[in-house]
Amino acid sequence: MLQQQLEFLKIADELKNVERQTRLVSNPRHENSAEHSWHIALMALTLHEHAADDNVNLCRVIKMLLVHDLVEIYAGDVPAFAETNAAEKEAREQQAADKLFATLPSAQAAEYRALWEEFESMKTSDALYAAAIDRFQPFFLNHLTGGYSWKKFNVTAAQVYKRMTPAKTAVPKLWAYIETVVQDAVEKGYVKP
Amino acid sequence: MLQQQLEFLKIADELKNVERQTRLVSNPRHENSAEHSWHIALMALTLHEHAADDNVNLCRVIKMLLVHDLVEIYAGDVPAFAETNAAEKEAREQQAADKLFATLPSAQAAEYRALWEEFESMKTSDALYAAAIDRFQPFFLNHLTGGYSWKKFNVTAAQVYKRMTPAKTAVPKLWAYIETVVQDAVEKGYVKP
Repeated sequence: MLQQQLEFLKIADELKNVERQTRLVSNPRHENSAEHSWHIALMALTLHEHAADDNVNLCRVIKMLLVHDLVEIYAGDVPAFAETNAAEKEAREQQAADKLFATLPSAQAAEYRALWEEFESMKTSDALYAAAIDRFQPFFLNHLTGGYSWKKFNVTAAQVYKRMTPAKTAVPKLWAYIETVVQDAVEKGYVKP
Repeated sequence: MLQQQLEFLKIADELKNVERQTRLVSNPRHENSAEHSWHIALMALTLHEHAADDNVNLCRVIKMLLVHDLVEIYAGDVPAFAETNAAEKEAREQQAADKLFATLPSAQAAEYRALWEEFESMKTSDALYAAAIDRFQPFFLNHLTGGYSWKKFNVTAAQVYKRMTPAKTAVPKLWAYIETVVQDAVEKGYVKP
């Protein structure tokens, strides 16, 4: 039992090598998925009071956020605004999940996989809040770094709004902030109208 | 409210720039405190069943681990085996906590500070489990990297055992594993007898 869990935690270390497309606030290097996972867990904790649904279970949300990117260890990170084949991405991530979670004792493997699948489906209140935060964090970093990855991917306001949709219902206060930031980003030329 | 919280979450990004003394499993670079915080949160979740006290509140433990290193943004990371002035370190971290948590709305500032102080005091079951995990993670990385920071700091077995003490009562199964690893590390010359 313990040996299997330690093997899983050793593999998990590899998430620190998965590079994302956003850069840090005061450092030109790109963020990795382990740092991102910590930042969004702290963000979900800090912004919890703004969740529209009072029944959001913060503890489950944080668990979801801690495990949600682990499949990238085998499947890689797919940039939010890159052109991708969704079916291919899903197949690759399902294979990665099979491989990764098989390391764990079976009950725990089932628990983690269920959390990940719930996150991906974005249907429950917990998953919607988690998705809103997961998408807001790189948005926030882009805002703080002169639109770094928005410019790199030639992103339009419509694309940003579409990506941020979960915040609209899950965290309305955040949505109002997002609208202000996007308008400002369009004026400054960081995002295309 | 939201503006204060976003300011705090912007400052929190700086934890990704705080370098630790341990290196990653398959990458020669050093780990930073944000990645470390994610790894221990995942570790606390994964090893929870081995906590000796059934009343350990996992949700509180994870919150503690998410915020416990934030003071390093202003106070820096102090290596586990470096010679330090404990009183000076504490004074520096208290000042850092004053500055950092003042960014947040007052109720939330009080909550985060209380979690951090509880963690530092290592008196409650939650804090002891959290400390055991926080100390086990760099131990585990050292084990997986040929004793990287043990060798750098000329560490003895007694120093390692002392540092790992919280695991002895909080996670006895982990303590048994720690003993095996230390014996092996002494035999290989990674740790001094």
